[in-house]
Amino acid sequence: MNREAIDLEERFSHFDEVWSPKVIARLNDYEIKLARLDGEFVWHSHQETDELFLVLSGSLTIQLRDGNVSLGPGQLFVVPRGVEHCPITDGGQVRVMLIEPAGVINTGEAGGELTASHDDSLA
Amino acid sequence: MNREAIDLEERFSHFDEVWSPKVIARLNDYEIKLARLDGEFVWHSHQETDELFLVLSGSLTIQLRDGNVSLGPGQLFVVPRGVEHCPITDGGQVRVMLIEPAGVINTGEAGGELTASHDDSLA
Repeated sequence: MNREAIDLEERFSHFDEVWSPKVIARLNDYEIKLARLDGEFVWHSHQETDELFLVLSGSLTIQLRDGNVSLGPGQLFVVPRGVEHCPITDGGQVRVMLIEPAGVINTGEAGGELTASHDDSLA
Repeated sequence: MNREAIDLEERFSHFDEVWSPKVIARLNDYEIKLARLDGEFVWHSHQETDELFLVLSGSLTIQLRDGNVSLGPGQLFVVPRGVEHCPITDGGQVRVMLIEPAGVINTGEAGGELTASHDDSLA
Protein backbone atom coordinates (compact mmCIF):
# COMPACT_ATOMS: atom_id res chain seq x y z
CA MET A 1 0.00 0.00 0.00
CA ASN A 2 1.28 3.41 -1.01
CA ARG A 3 1.46 5.69 2.02
CA GLU A 4 2.10 8.88 0.09
CA ALA A 5 -0.27 11.71 -0.60
CA ILE A 6 -0.92 12.29 -4.29
CA ASP A 7 -0.18 15.88 -5.19
CA LEU A 8 -2.24 17.02 -8.17
CA GLU A 9 0.19 19.78 -9.14
CA GLU A 10 3.12 17.38 -9.04
CA ARG A 11 1.28 14.79 -11.13
CA PHE A 12 0.56 17.38 -13.83
CA SER A 13 4.28 18.07 -14.11
CA HIS A 14 4.69 14.60 -15.65
CA PHE A 15 2.78 15.22 -18.85
CA ASP A 16 1.99 17.91 -21.39
CA GLU A 17 -0.41 16.22 -23.81
CA VAL A 18 -3.96 17.49 -24.06
CA TRP A 19 -7.10 15.31 -24.23
CA SER A 20 -5.12 12.41 -22.81
CA PRO A 21 -6.32 11.56 -19.30
CA LYS A 22 -3.83 9.99 -16.88
CA VAL A 23 -4.94 7.73 -14.05
CA ILE A 24 -3.45 8.96 -10.77
CA ALA A 25 -5.42 6.90 -8.26
CA ARG A 26 -8.07 4.23 -7.92
CA LEU A 27 -11.13 4.11 -5.71
CA ASN A 28 -12.69 0.66 -5.76
CA ASP A 29 -13.41 0.11 -9.47
CA TYR A 30 -13.25 3.81 -10.28
CA GLU A 31 -10.30 5.78 -11.60
CA ILE A 32 -9.23 9.27 -10.65
CA LYS A 33 -7.67 10.95 -13.67
CA LEU A 34 -6.02 14.23 -14.53
CA ALA A 35 -6.28 15.79 -17.95
CA ARG A 36 -5.20 18.90 -19.79
CA LEU A 37 -7.82 20.23 -22.19
CA ASP A 38 -7.35 22.78 -24.97
CA GLY A 39 -9.81 23.63 -27.71
CA GLU A 40 -12.93 21.68 -28.54
CA PHE A 41 -13.36 17.93 -28.00
CA VAL A 42 -15.88 15.77 -29.86
CA TRP A 43 -19.57 15.28 -29.14
CA HIS A 44 -20.01 11.95 -27.41
CA SER A 45 -21.80 10.18 -24.59
CA HIS A 46 -21.17 7.34 -22.19
CA GLN A 47 -24.11 4.97 -22.15
CA GLU A 48 -23.03 3.11 -19.04
CA THR A 49 -21.87 5.78 -16.63
CA ASP A 50 -21.95 9.31 -15.30
CA GLU A 51 -18.73 11.31 -15.60
CA LEU A 52 -17.43 13.86 -13.11
CA PHE A 53 -15.45 16.94 -14.18
CA LEU A 54 -13.74 19.07 -11.52
CA VAL A 55 -11.95 22.09 -12.96
CA LEU A 56 -8.62 22.82 -11.28
CA SER A 57 -7.48 25.72 -13.47
CA GLY A 58 -8.81 27.57 -16.46
CA SER A 59 -12.28 28.00 -17.82
CA LEU A 60 -14.29 25.16 -19.34
CA THR A 61 -17.66 24.95 -21.03
CA ILE A 62 -19.39 21.59 -21.20
CA GLN A 63 -21.70 21.88 -24.16
CA LEU A 64 -24.90 19.85 -23.90
CA ARG A 65 -27.54 19.52 -26.59
CA ASP A 66 -29.91 21.69 -24.61
CA GLY A 67 -27.55 24.18 -23.00
CA ASN A 68 -24.06 24.85 -21.72
CA VAL A 69 -22.48 24.49 -18.30
CA SER A 70 -19.62 26.88 -17.51
CA LEU A 71 -16.97 25.77 -15.05
CA GLY A 72 -14.10 27.60 -13.41
CA PRO A 73 -11.56 26.48 -10.82
CA GLY A 74 -13.17 24.76 -7.85
CA GLN A 75 -16.35 23.95 -9.75
CA LEU A 76 -17.59 20.53 -10.75
CA PHE A 77 -20.26 19.02 -12.92
CA VAL A 78 -21.47 15.46 -13.34
CA VAL A 79 -22.53 14.61 -16.89
CA PRO A 80 -25.28 12.00 -16.53
CA ARG A 81 -24.96 8.72 -18.36
CA GLY A 82 -26.26 8.79 -21.88
CA VAL A 83 -26.16 12.57 -22.18
CA GLU A 84 -24.29 13.89 -25.19
CA HIS A 85 -21.65 16.44 -24.29
CA CYS A 86 -18.71 18.22 -25.83
CA PRO A 87 -16.16 20.04 -23.67
CA ILE A 88 -14.62 23.22 -25.04
CA THR A 89 -12.07 25.43 -23.36
CA ASP A 90 -12.61 29.18 -23.03
CA GLY A 91 -9.23 30.71 -23.76
CA GLY A 92 -6.14 28.88 -22.52
CA GLN A 93 -5.53 25.38 -21.34
CA VAL A 94 -7.80 23.88 -18.72
CA ARG A 95 -6.74 21.33 -16.12
CA VAL A 96 -9.35 18.96 -14.79
CA MET A 97 -9.77 16.01 -12.47
CA LEU A 98 -12.06 13.34 -13.91
CA ILE A 99 -13.70 10.48 -12.05
CA GLU A 100 -15.39 7.56 -13.75
CA PRO A 101 -15.35 3.76 -13.66
CA ALA A 102 -12.24 2.03 -14.95
CA GLY A 103 -12.43 1.19 -18.63
CA VAL A 104 -14.37 4.21 -19.85
CA ILE A 105 -13.18 5.45 -23.24
CA ASN A 106 -12.75 9.23 -23.38
CA THR A 107 -14.62 9.64 -26.66
CA GLY A 108 -17.46 7.32 -25.61
CA GLU A 109 -19.34 5.93 -28.58
CA ALA A 110 -17.94 8.59 -30.94
CA GLY A 111 -14.43 7.20 -31.37
CA GLY A 112 -12.10 9.05 -33.71
CA GLU A 113 -8.62 10.47 -33.53
CA LEU A 114 -9.03 12.01 -30.07
CA THR A 115 -9.59 8.58 -28.54
CA ALA A 116 -6.88 8.20 -25.89
CA SER A 117 -5.23 4.99 -24.83
CA HIS A 118 -5.68 3.99 -21.21
CA ASP A 119 -2.72 5.51 -19.35
CA ASP A 120 -2.20 4.58 -15.73
CA SER A 121 1.51 5.33 -15.67
CA LEU A 122 0.94 7.99 -13.02
CA ALA A 123 -1.06 5.79 -10.68
CA MET B 1 -31.27 17.49 -14.89
CA ASN B 2 -29.47 20.29 -13.13
CA ARG B 3 -27.47 22.33 -15.61
CA GLU B 4 -25.52 24.32 -13.04
CA ALA B 5 -21.91 23.95 -12.06
CA ILE B 6 -21.42 23.05 -8.41
CA ASP B 7 -19.12 25.55 -6.75
CA LEU B 8 -17.27 24.00 -3.82
CA GLU B 9 -16.66 27.33 -2.09
CA GLU B 10 -20.31 28.28 -2.39
CA ARG B 11 -21.44 24.92 -1.02
CA PHE B 12 -19.22 25.32 2.04
CA SER B 13 -20.96 28.61 2.82
CA HIS B 14 -24.09 26.62 3.68
CA PHE B 15 -22.75 24.85 6.74
CA ASP B 16 -20.38 25.27 9.66
CA GLU B 17 -20.53 21.93 11.46
CA VAL B 18 -17.40 19.81 11.61
CA TRP B 19 -17.24 16.04 11.04
CA SER B 20 -20.60 16.20 9.29
CA PRO B 21 -20.20 15.44 5.57
CA LYS B 22 -22.71 16.96 3.16
CA VAL B 23 -23.55 15.33 -0.15
CA ILE B 24 -23.16 17.87 -2.96
CA ALA B 25 -23.36 15.60 -6.02
CA ARG B 26 -23.84 12.02 -7.13
CA LEU B 27 -21.86 9.97 -9.60
CA ASN B 28 -23.66 6.72 -10.39
CA ASP B 29 -24.02 5.12 -6.96
CA TYR B 30 -21.27 7.23 -5.42
CA GLU B 31 -21.61 10.43 -3.45
CA ILE B 32 -19.40 13.51 -3.60
CA LYS B 33 -19.32 15.11 -0.17
CA LEU B 34 -17.79 18.16 1.46
CA ALA B 35 -16.74 18.19 5.09
CA ARG B 36 -15.12 20.48 7.61
CA LEU B 37 -12.72 18.72 9.95
CA ASP B 38 -11.26 20.01 13.19
CA GLY B 39 -9.38 18.04 15.81
CA GLU B 40 -9.10 14.27 15.93
CA PHE B 41 -11.76 11.88 14.62
CA VAL B 42 -12.12 8.26 15.76
CA TRP B 43 -10.24 5.20 14.60
CA HIS B 44 -12.42 3.26 12.22
CA SER B 45 -12.47 1.37 8.96
CA HIS B 46 -14.86 0.69 6.12
CA GLN B 47 -14.95 -3.00 5.33
CA GLU B 48 -16.75 -2.62 2.02
CA THR B 49 -15.11 0.32 0.32
CA ASP B 50 -12.15 2.55 -0.30
CA GLU B 51 -12.53 6.22 0.70
CA LEU B 52 -11.07 9.21 -1.11
CA PHE B 53 -9.93 12.34 0.73
CA LEU B 54 -9.01 15.45 -1.28
CA VAL B 55 -7.85 18.33 0.89
CA LEU B 56 -9.12 21.72 -0.27
CA SER B 57 -7.73 23.87 2.54
CA GLY B 58 -5.75 23.31 5.71
CA SER B 59 -3.45 20.55 6.77
CA LEU B 60 -4.64 17.01 7.51
CA THR B 61 -2.94 13.89 8.77
CA ILE B 62 -4.56 10.56 8.12
CA GLN B 63 -3.22 8.32 10.83
CA LEU B 64 -2.87 4.67 9.87
CA ARG B 65 -1.80 1.86 12.18
CA ASP B 66 1.55 1.62 10.43
CA GLY B 67 2.24 5.24 9.57
CA ASN B 68 0.78 8.64 8.80
CA VAL B 69 -0.12 10.36 5.56
CA SER B 70 0.13 14.16 5.53
CA LEU B 71 -2.11 16.08 3.17
CA GLY B 72 -2.23 19.74 2.21
CA PRO B 73 -4.39 21.61 -0.30
CA GLY B 74 -4.50 19.92 -3.69
CA GLN B 75 -3.40 16.57 -2.28
CA LEU B 76 -5.47 13.40 -2.11
CA PHE B 77 -5.26 9.98 -0.55
CA VAL B 78 -7.38 6.89 -0.95
CA VAL B 79 -7.77 4.86 2.24
CA PRO B 80 -8.13 1.25 1.10
CA ARG B 81 -11.11 -0.77 2.27
CA GLY B 82 -10.61 -2.43 5.61
CA VAL B 83 -7.70 -0.21 6.64
CA GLU B 84 -8.08 1.43 10.01
CA HIS B 85 -7.57 5.16 9.90
CA CYS B 86 -8.09 8.23 12.04
CA PRO B 87 -7.97 11.73 10.53
CA ILE B 88 -6.54 14.53 12.65
CA THR B 89 -6.14 18.15 11.69
CA ASP B 90 -2.84 19.95 12.05
CA GLY B 91 -3.74 23.36 13.38
CA GLY B 92 -6.92 24.98 12.13
CA GLN B 93 -9.95 23.68 10.35
CA VAL B 94 -9.50 21.52 7.27
CA ARG B 95 -11.92 21.40 4.36
CA VAL B 96 -12.07 18.22 2.32
CA MET B 97 -13.93 16.63 -0.54
CA LEU B 98 -14.80 12.98 0.11
CA ILE B 99 -15.88 10.39 -2.44
CA GLU B 100 -17.34 7.03 -1.52
CA PRO B 101 -20.36 4.89 -2.34
CA ALA B 102 -23.73 6.09 -1.11
CA GLY B 103 -24.64 4.73 2.29
CA VAL B 104 -21.20 4.71 3.89
CA ILE B 105 -21.28 5.70 7.57
CA ASN B 106 -18.57 8.21 8.47
CA THR B 107 -17.44 6.32 11.56
CA GLY B 108 -17.46 2.94 9.81
CA GLU B 109 -17.73 0.07 12.25
CA ALA B 110 -16.69 2.24 15.20
CA GLY B 111 -19.94 4.15 15.69
CA GLY B 112 -20.12 6.59 18.58
CA GLU B 113 -21.07 10.20 19.02
CA LEU B 114 -19.27 11.45 15.90
CA THR B 115 -21.50 9.32 13.68
CA ALA B 116 -23.17 11.76 11.30
CA SER B 117 -26.59 11.42 9.79
CA HIS B 118 -26.77 11.18 6.03
CA ASP B 119 -27.17 14.76 4.81
CA ASP B 120 -27.87 15.33 1.15
CA SER B 121 -29.50 18.71 1.60
CA LEU B 122 -26.79 20.34 -0.54
CA ALA B 123 -27.09 17.92 -3.44
